[in-house]
Amino acid sequence: MANTDWPGCGKSLKGVILDMCGVLYDSGEGGGVAITGSIEAVKKLKASDLQLRFCTNETQLNREAFVDKLKRLGFDISVSEVFSPAPAAVAVLKERGFRPHLLVYDGLLPEFDSVDKTNPNCVVIGDAAEKFTYQNLNEAFRVLIGLEKPVLFSLGGGRYYKEGDGLALDVGAYMKALEYACDLKAEVVGKPSPTFFQSVLNDMGLQPHEALMIGDDLVNDVGGAQNCGMKGLQVRTGKYRPSDERHSTVTADGTVDDLAQAVDMILKQRH
Amino acid sequence: MANTDWPGCGKSLKGVILDMCGVLYDSGEGGGVAITGSIEAVKKLKASDLQLRFCTNETQLNREAFVDKLKRLGFDISVSEVFSPAPAAVAVLKERGFRPHLLVYDGLLPEFDSVDKTNPNCVVIGDAAEKFTYQNLNEAFRVLIGLEKPVLFSLGGGRYYKEGDGLALDVGAYMKALEYACDLKAEVVGKPSPTFFQSVLNDMGLQPHEALMIGDDLVNDVGGAQNCGMKGLQVRTGKYRPSDERHSTVTADGTVDDLAQAVDMILKQRH
Repeated sequence: MANTDWPGCGKSLKGVILDMCGVLYDSGEGGGVAITGSIEAVKKLKASDLQLRFCTNETQLNREAFVDKLKRLGFDISVSEVFSPAPAAVAVLKERGFRPHLLVYDGLLPEFDSVDKTNPNCVVIGDAAEKFTYQNLNEAFRVLIGLEKPVLFSLGGGRYYKEGDGLALDVGAYMKALEYACDLKAEVVGKPSPTFFQSVLNDMGLQPHEALMIGDDLVNDVGGAQNCGMKGLQVRTGKYRPSDERHSTVTADGTVDDLAQAVDMILKQRH
Repeated sequence: MANTDWPGCGKSLKGVILDMCGVLYDSGEGGGVAITGSIEAVKKLKASDLQLRFCTNETQLNREAFVDKLKRLGFDISVSEVFSPAPAAVAVLKERGFRPHLLVYDGLLPEFDSVDKTNPNCVVIGDAAEKFTYQNLNEAFRVLIGLEKPVLFSLGGGRYYKEGDGLALDVGAYMKALEYACDLKAEVVGKPSPTFFQSVLNDMGLQPHEALMIGDDLVNDVGGAQNCGMKGLQVRTGKYRPSDERHSTVTADGTVDDLAQAVDMILKQRH
């Protein structure tokens, strides 16, 4: 960790939550590539006495397909360890009687199989990528503007992410477009929603101060976790940019080169 | 005017500014269609002692082509009477040494012929319609995020407008998407920018209280004009929606069925 003190979780640390894209792997053509040292780092965490969960705003694949992808890259990981926005959204939709118009990536559609989608009374957007066409956005907009009380759910609030060929606009940008056009505030399901982080803590049975979030997204991973009372560590991989280290509102509890370095330091402090 | 008192410009009124799309005509396939009574209403205004200007955020055509379109629909109008964002933007770009990356409709490109576009140091977006593709938005985003001080100019800040087949997202929605992704505030050129309204007033040589804006867009036409000290009248054509009449922040000085009704009332008050 260059020029920063260690956040000081030390021996009180009981659980670690890892963001996935940009921490474990970089996305890209053909399913992406594991970030150097990250496969081994996950193994070390699993061999330790720390609890481990994975937390992603990935909304291009359903969880099964997503975990399969990670396994093919070499990661030891199972579906029950992974928290993603779509299942959380399905629970909210059913609980509150919402029938969504979906603007999501095709690969995510199976997550919504059990949800009534007739005569929509809300819109759900995920990272639809190429499906964010002018036509599809207008269609989602028309559903919203036609409702007496327009309700928009956004699977995450990310600004952008790193693709194989560069940075790409994330779902949060399109969420803002629809918010502005319809004069409404979207409900974010997924990072950085406190409800979402809390559900991961509940699953581990831990208090916020006992857990550490490691991510590449300063605002959504680090800031989101900090808002929940956790420590947040940023890695200099994925969508990290040097200007993150002098951000106006979010300051990471620490910044490390990559997950491998983070895990080595975490485990060293426990002995 | 149903159930509202006349705003009371009366005999002190010296000039009228008309929004175009949704007031003079409805857009649609084949160039759109004149709104009933609006051709005659423009004639009546021109025959009166009032000054008349047209003010549009149209950014799909250059001014010459746009005025030609209006003439074909039957309107008596000339280029020198029309104020649109692109020429205003060109002036700003040259004055401040900006070389734009353009995300605008093809028909607008000729307006920027005289501007240096090599090695861009800002982005200009207009209502690019079908050109608002995922790829083109990512491209504009990458230009911005690659700049040390990202600068975004938006030709208008409209939320949506009426197309032949329904409502469509306007440039303001995409402006918000890029603002959020890049953590910046765009500079709006065109309505509702006070600079833009002021340039129209200057051209007429009038003070704000001597002029009346008539538009279908409550926030950008009516609210924008009111912010400049003008009265603002909304017509119930174009993108008008009944909920506009109970908007939380903008209240029109009057609401009328269409331009024909507005002009009849204005002229009646002058006798």
